[in-house]
Amino acid sequence: MEHTSFPPLSRVAICGGTHGNELSGVYIVKEMQKQKVEKIGSVSVISVLSNPPAIDVCRRYTETDLNRCFSDAKLSSTLTDSAAYEMRRAHELNAQLGPKGGEKAVDLIIDLHNTTSNMGVCLILSYLDWLTLHICKYIQTKMTSAPVTVMQLNDSNADGYSLDMLGKHGFAIEVGPQPHGVLRADIFNMMKRTLDFTTDWLQEFNDGHIFEGGEVETYSFLRSVDYPRDASGQITAAIHPQLQDKDFTLLQPGDPMFLSFSGETVKYEGEPVYPMFVNECAYYEKKIAFHLAEKITLKVPSISVKN
Amino acid sequence: MEHTSFPPLSRVAICGGTHGNELSGVYIVKEMQKQKVEKIGSVSVISVLSNPPAIDVCRRYTETDLNRCFSDAKLSSTLTDSAAYEMRRAHELNAQLGPKGGEKAVDLIIDLHNTTSNMGVCLILSYLDWLTLHICKYIQTKMTSAPVTVMQLNDSNADGYSLDMLGKHGFAIEVGPQPHGVLRADIFNMMKRTLDFTTDWLQEFNDGHIFEGGEVETYSFLRSVDYPRDASGQITAAIHPQLQDKDFTLLQPGDPMFLSFSGETVKYEGEPVYPMFVNECAYYEKKIAFHLAEKITLKVPSISVKN
Repeated sequence: MEHTSFPPLSRVAICGGTHGNELSGVYIVKEMQKQKVEKIGSVSVISVLSNPPAIDVCRRYTETDLNRCFSDAKLSSTLTDSAAYEMRRAHELNAQLGPKGGEKAVDLIIDLHNTTSNMGVCLILSYLDWLTLHICKYIQTKMTSAPVTVMQLNDSNADGYSLDMLGKHGFAIEVGPQPHGVLRADIFNMMKRTLDFTTDWLQEFNDGHIFEGGEVETYSFLRSVDYPRDASGQITAAIHPQLQDKDFTLLQPGDPMFLSFSGETVKYEGEPVYPMFVNECAYYEKKIAFHLAEKITLKVPSISVKN
Repeated sequence: MEHTSFPPLSRVAICGGTHGNELSGVYIVKEMQKQKVEKIGSVSVISVLSNPPAIDVCRRYTETDLNRCFSDAKLSSTLTDSAAYEMRRAHELNAQLGPKGGEKAVDLIIDLHNTTSNMGVCLILSYLDWLTLHICKYIQTKMTSAPVTVMQLNDSNADGYSLDMLGKHGFAIEVGPQPHGVLRADIFNMMKRTLDFTTDWLQEFNDGHIFEGGEVETYSFLRSVDYPRDASGQITAAIHPQLQDKDFTLLQPGDPMFLSFSGETVKYEGEPVYPMFVNECAYYEKKIAFHLAEKITLKVPSISVKN
């Protein structure tokens, strides 16, 4: 595989509170702002609280999910007076950190998230990118205190709807389990360490280090599964105790999937797959009990900075 | 100790969704209503969704915390047009299940709650009552699958502010850890089993069984501890990892209590005490990081039904 090079990464944005009740990122960014962190080594750092009104009321969003507002269609739409706050904020963030796909966009966006699911440290890539895959590989090698997985969504650049799409490169750090609206020191520390390894990598990259090629194991999104519901749309079952907290553990045909409120077990049918985001709080309203993924090992080329 | 007798318990209310995002009780009550449960043995059962608008939006409350609205002062106040929804609902519930302290009140109220804290099954008594203490003792004996603790708040009848105060007897079943807005089958099952043991007890009691006297270990509320905060009221630390999830584990002087965002440990000073509700989500806005309690062993008399 060929060697690939990228321009230096001189401007990096670290965003927290894109979902206002995911508190690790909120407090990491607030602490950076309190400590006036504007530079880490050779990298200029912009720290951003993405959704301040949602942070103030400790909710995911105030009117609509901000982290679904960054598709090309939404960013190019005209803002009307009745536009949701988050749509207006998405345009603001596109002006500050983007424009998406443009030359003036920041080099890298790291967006900080929490989940109620037992995901450990999960690095989420909206699309395949050798550079962010190398960062993931580095974090997986360095992090000894927690499992680190890589999830890829396979979005096209135009359809990609998440905040991290605004940068030339970007990914989300998703850490759990943590209840929304709660701050756990163990989860805070896992996110902080992941962020520190990322800035270490940026330093080495900008300094000219050649990162050898190799393999990265990723979980590639296939589809979502909803809860069983009655005619009025009410859920009639919970995630089965044998599936609860088993994110990234192979789900086989015949394995228990749901336990109904009257006590019946619903079993999984289909090919063996990996569940992710099992019982994420914010996904009840999106009609998602969990995602399913296949494990894919990617070969990445060696990379270094283009001088 | 003397023997004590009580009239039969013929009307019992089971309440869920007093906090609209505590989902075990919400779904237990919804399932009871779907199954049209109106009688369990000799007992008439009223199942109540306490705060339907809060349940609809999956929040603790819409305007004010319903479970702080049942003091004598609040129940006797005149409702103005600007009264919070929950104040109006408290008056409605007092008419339906009370009146508090009155002859027509239901015999027993069981109020179902969840917490993000690692409380296991915690039975909360607003005040000392031989009858509810006997129910607690029975549940502690029968439940083998989870730890069962008893917490007493020492409220006076007039000042007692919780929904369960409306009945002639009452207690809350608090089960955790579970994120608010999430339903876990294991927590659901623990609550369901606790409720089943309670109705078993009611059956035996009404049938004339004599419950022998003995001892009940309780945790008696002493005071609350707030998070460290800066001048603007923002928290500056999280619960220390060594205290997180350690509800009902003795906290000794010198033990770590908080870990600040810049990495300093704050230690506990004072007499040895038991922490409860460690890192409960809803208590951030109440300025409570955890409660402290002392362990008290109570002697209870033997009891039976008065015929």
